[in-house]
Amino acid sequence: MSADSILPSGTPLLDQVSSPDDLKRLSRDQLPALAQELRDEITRVCSVGGLHLASSLGATDLIVALHYVLNSPRDRILFDVGHQAYAHKMLTGRRDQMATVKKEGGLSGFTKVSESPHDAITVGHASTSLANALGMAMARDALGQDYKVAAVIGDGSLTGGMALAALNTIGDMNRRMLIVLNDNEMSISENVGAMNKFMRGLQVQKWFQEGEGAGKKAMEAVSKPLASFMSRAKSSTRHFFDPASVNPFAAMGVRYVGPVDGHNVQELVWLMERLADLDGPTILHVVTKKGKGLSYAEADPIYWHGPGKFDPSTGEFSASKAYSWSNAFGDAMTELAAQDPRTFVITPAMREGSGLVGYSKAHPNRYLDVGIAEEVAVTAAAGMALQGLRPVVAIYSSFLQRAYDQVLHDVAIENLNVTFAIDRAGIVGADGATHNGVFDLSFLRSIPGVHIGLPKDAAELRGMLKYAQTHDGPFAIRYPRGNTTPVPEGTWPELEWGTWERVQDGTDVVILAGGKGLEYAQKAATGLPGVGVVNARFVKPLDEAMLRDVARNARAIITVEDNTVVGGFGSAVLEFLNAEGIKTPVRVLGIPDEFQEHATVESVHARSGIDAQAIRTVLAELGVDVPLGV
Amino acid sequence: MSADSILPSGTPLLDQVSSPDDLKRLSRDQLPALAQELRDEITRVCSVGGLHLASSLGATDLIVALHYVLNSPRDRILFDVGHQAYAHKMLTGRRDQMATVKKEGGLSGFTKVSESPHDAITVGHASTSLANALGMAMARDALGQDYKVAAVIGDGSLTGGMALAALNTIGDMNRRMLIVLNDNEMSISENVGAMNKFMRGLQVQKWFQEGEGAGKKAMEAVSKPLASFMSRAKSSTRHFFDPASVNPFAAMGVRYVGPVDGHNVQELVWLMERLADLDGPTILHVVTKKGKGLSYAEADPIYWHGPGKFDPSTGEFSASKAYSWSNAFGDAMTELAAQDPRTFVITPAMREGSGLVGYSKAHPNRYLDVGIAEEVAVTAAAGMALQGLRPVVAIYSSFLQRAYDQVLHDVAIENLNVTFAIDRAGIVGADGATHNGVFDLSFLRSIPGVHIGLPKDAAELRGMLKYAQTHDGPFAIRYPRGNTTPVPEGTWPELEWGTWERVQDGTDVVILAGGKGLEYAQKAATGLPGVGVVNARFVKPLDEAMLRDVARNARAIITVEDNTVVGGFGSAVLEFLNAEGIKTPVRVLGIPDEFQEHATVESVHARSGIDAQAIRTVLAELGVDVPLGV
Repeated sequence: MSADSILPSGTPLLDQVSSPDDLKRLSRDQLPALAQELRDEITRVCSVGGLHLASSLGATDLIVALHYVLNSPRDRILFDVGHQAYAHKMLTGRRDQMATVKKEGGLSGFTKVSESPHDAITVGHASTSLANALGMAMARDALGQDYKVAAVIGDGSLTGGMALAALNTIGDMNRRMLIVLNDNEMSISENVGAMNKFMRGLQVQKWFQEGEGAGKKAMEAVSKPLASFMSRAKSSTRHFFDPASVNPFAAMGVRYVGPVDGHNVQELVWLMERLADLDGPTILHVVTKKGKGLSYAEADPIYWHGPGKFDPSTGEFSASKAYSWSNAFGDAMTELAAQDPRTFVITPAMREGSGLVGYSKAHPNRYLDVGIAEEVAVTAAAGMALQGLRPVVAIYSSFLQRAYDQVLHDVAIENLNVTFAIDRAGIVGADGATHNGVFDLSFLRSIPGVHIGLPKDAAELRGMLKYAQTHDGPFAIRYPRGNTTPVPEGTWPELEWGTWERVQDGTDVVILAGGKGLEYAQKAATGLPGVGVVNARFVKPLDEAMLRDVARNARAIITVEDNTVVGGFGSAVLEFLNAEGIKTPVRVLGIPDEFQEHATVESVHARSGIDAQAIRTVLAELGVDVPLGV
Repeated sequence: MSADSILPSGTPLLDQVSSPDDLKRLSRDQLPALAQELRDEITRVCSVGGLHLASSLGATDLIVALHYVLNSPRDRILFDVGHQAYAHKMLTGRRDQMATVKKEGGLSGFTKVSESPHDAITVGHASTSLANALGMAMARDALGQDYKVAAVIGDGSLTGGMALAALNTIGDMNRRMLIVLNDNEMSISENVGAMNKFMRGLQVQKWFQEGEGAGKKAMEAVSKPLASFMSRAKSSTRHFFDPASVNPFAAMGVRYVGPVDGHNVQELVWLMERLADLDGPTILHVVTKKGKGLSYAEADPIYWHGPGKFDPSTGEFSASKAYSWSNAFGDAMTELAAQDPRTFVITPAMREGSGLVGYSKAHPNRYLDVGIAEEVAVTAAAGMALQGLRPVVAIYSSFLQRAYDQVLHDVAIENLNVTFAIDRAGIVGADGATHNGVFDLSFLRSIPGVHIGLPKDAAELRGMLKYAQTHDGPFAIRYPRGNTTPVPEGTWPELEWGTWERVQDGTDVVILAGGKGLEYAQKAATGLPGVGVVNARFVKPLDEAMLRDVARNARAIITVEDNTVVGGFGSAVLEFLNAEGIKTPVRVLGIPDEFQEHATVESVHARSGIDAQAIRTVLAELGVDVPLGV
């Protein structure tokens, strides 16, 4: 299609559909046009920036087919990750609110149980849909109910460990369930891994295979017309009915059908009507195109995964000139690896997001993308450290949660030299509760031997990364989503390990804060002579000498952290002061002990009471003479 | 073999071997006899109780073959889980210390890097070996070295998510590596999952398959004799050289050879010599028998996985009559499920260990074993809770670490009604650092909405489990390894949610403790009238009213917990008191911030300073008049 067709051109069919029931009143012939209207509207909605365009376009046809065939919310439709489900939101009564997606008080960017009865799971992390679907199918059967369960999972998500493990149990339990494998040949960046190669192989091979099991008979009833359909669809289609010709899905005990064209809505409807009723689990492998229907998005789906603002008619956008913390990390690693042959960087499917495009090109032999498998990233790093490398795991804070045990069991017990470069630490804003990285200080601090640093700027990040290459033991460096100021190549500030830094003198009330919190603290304390500010750049170890000194001389301490107040930096300070018998009052500012919904970072920080204004309010409560405003 | 042959019968070959170099001086003909000597000695060593007998017997032949072919420690041999590696310990200079396995100051029950240069990884949790091996192979190649990497992984461990995900990347990266799939048809209890069925299918099918890739040519050179060997080995052998006849391993890009007899040492040597030199990754699928060579262990390998003391010549043992916390949990669930059709219990491969044998028989339709896949256990529970069930995940504390993100992302964000029955919480003793469950209070407490209870006895456990069936939101109940006192069927004490209980009056110094800590506290405070003891059975929420009251009236507070002192119960108390501005001194007793090596539970508690004696010492330091001794 030409770019022009995404210009506002009327939505006569979509205007008739505000529920799955409305959808079912359309004829099958109308479905392709409806899908196109959905895609046009998704493109317009996404052009304001920050939304998941390409994957939503690719999944639109299969979502129309699913809602045409199934009866949501009685039947459960689960979307893995959930960022491809915009068409689902629009077909289930939320079309009018699409402009609010990811905005404070608006719709979530993912599916969310509390948002709509049609959202079967609350999600944001990959690879969870199959285990959820298994649980739902078993609940249905345990309670003697008979609704259907369908999970939509991308090829990237399917390579996640828990998805593969869930498939293993799904094949064993043999419950009625439809798994739509939405194969767009990439998750967020290019897909990696052998399963991916295998799926590519399937696409060439074009086969249809049936496992043995309860659904065998039912399947035979549809297999002939299905075979005929598949012959029509692709002249090269070959069919394998011999169970000996296994594929990994069939080997797992899951009936496999595909691959089929994921953009032929009518054929998808035809297939799903038959497959959804079969006993036992069935995988329908559909091939889709990320960015479907939008020439510029099809051409560069990695950029168009979640683009900034753009002109929907032309695809023109102004490339961001901002320098992100991720860029600062990637640049530092590229330089470090040139100096030290032991440097190695691992990412779990986040090359672009982690600023590693340049690194991966400069040092391809010391770069590993393990796909969406955070556990493998961390434990592979352990193996490398055991054999003399200095691996750095580049990972988002909320995804490191998935490798908590690997950090503890595989890295920390032997005190291995693994560095964790934790991006998106703290509140991330628009992606909301599933993506906020506000637990890492708490869960990492309780693991023996894991040191934790919070650089205040790009230079300090580089200093920490450089030091980490000689540090003995695991070291976690956390930095926020957002931008920082670039520093010249070769900048490697020396850092005395475990030390804090006084950035504003003052001993009456002293604010201890690292990272984002320090930025707020400095702003709040500007012009207040009695207020001291300390760059508490290490959360573990604490700079005990400085903390003791500060606490003994100050009337009160304020700690500020972009992390939950439960068990985080403030708690570390309390634990130390209590152990020392120092009674200085401490005001612990951080993210409250509840999940934070999507909004801007600034808004969440303000309502959490950690921004400069909030710190000033606390200073005033402590009797500091604070002028109004900040 | 008869049971008699494991009686002390001399170890003429083993006496010549104290290193892999010594082993290589033996002729191939001598290897089967050596393996038998190893097995006899392992049986004698294990008869003292508490060791991993059956799996170690099953892996002996393949371990002999690996050390005969490879050159450890230069070549790296990784054992998944590590509890099957006794023969490896004995062949690498630790034979004289086998009587110290799992004892304080003695050998670990697993492999441990700090114990021997021959132990390639420190391990205890399953499914980590492949990611570690991948990291090692990539480190080798990045540094231009040329040693070999071999991982031994059981069929149970292979079904863990991170093992499958690692295989996906291993197939993609195509580095030289030998994976010995030690297929004994079970991990600890019966194996579950579709992969297991598939592997059983392979055993019937007997095939030999080769993927495409760098090793193709080399492989062809050995394939003819190999085929001939396999024909000799099993008359039913079929060979598949057609890459289209894929199996899941080949689909992942990993060369597959097998299955072969895992107890024919000479043939294993022949094969490994050829396979270890091939480029790219190779899986050698060997079929072994858990308990090999010991008739009673072969007959009941689940019991003999880790038996108590027994008579090695007869296999006689005295069944434990003790009533464990696990028994109390299982009994309670069996009764609860009879009352409430929404009750469902999920275990990640720990039916026996979690006391669920009776439950699984009484309620087979509301019982799910997901295999070694803790993430799937938790997220399947989320799916069940979303559809109206009241699932209970029975899980060991140290394994719950693997599902931290699933607790947070899949359960807690939507405040789902999932109960976590956390067994083996606190110090577990002999299994050591990898198995101690001393982090759960810290990592769970920081997740919003997760309530945490520590029952003092079986009755309170039952009260909590019963209440959990109506509680709104996730609830974690932790209880220790060890025994408790049984209570009559139908005992369901009422429990006011979130409340503590004064178990000894006294307001001068008050000890706050739950679970195991309470037991010590009561013992320490007996006969000390000024000392109060509170059963702090909820760590979240705290009983704020009682804590406020206690803190305002006491001269000092002591908190006791079988959990790290970092971010745990004591920290929760400090956080609350600080927020309230209450200055009562608090002595926080718990497990120090370092990994605790294996020893008895009592010994670790004593050295950690949380047992009754240690509490008395603290009381004395606080000025309480404490008589000598406890």
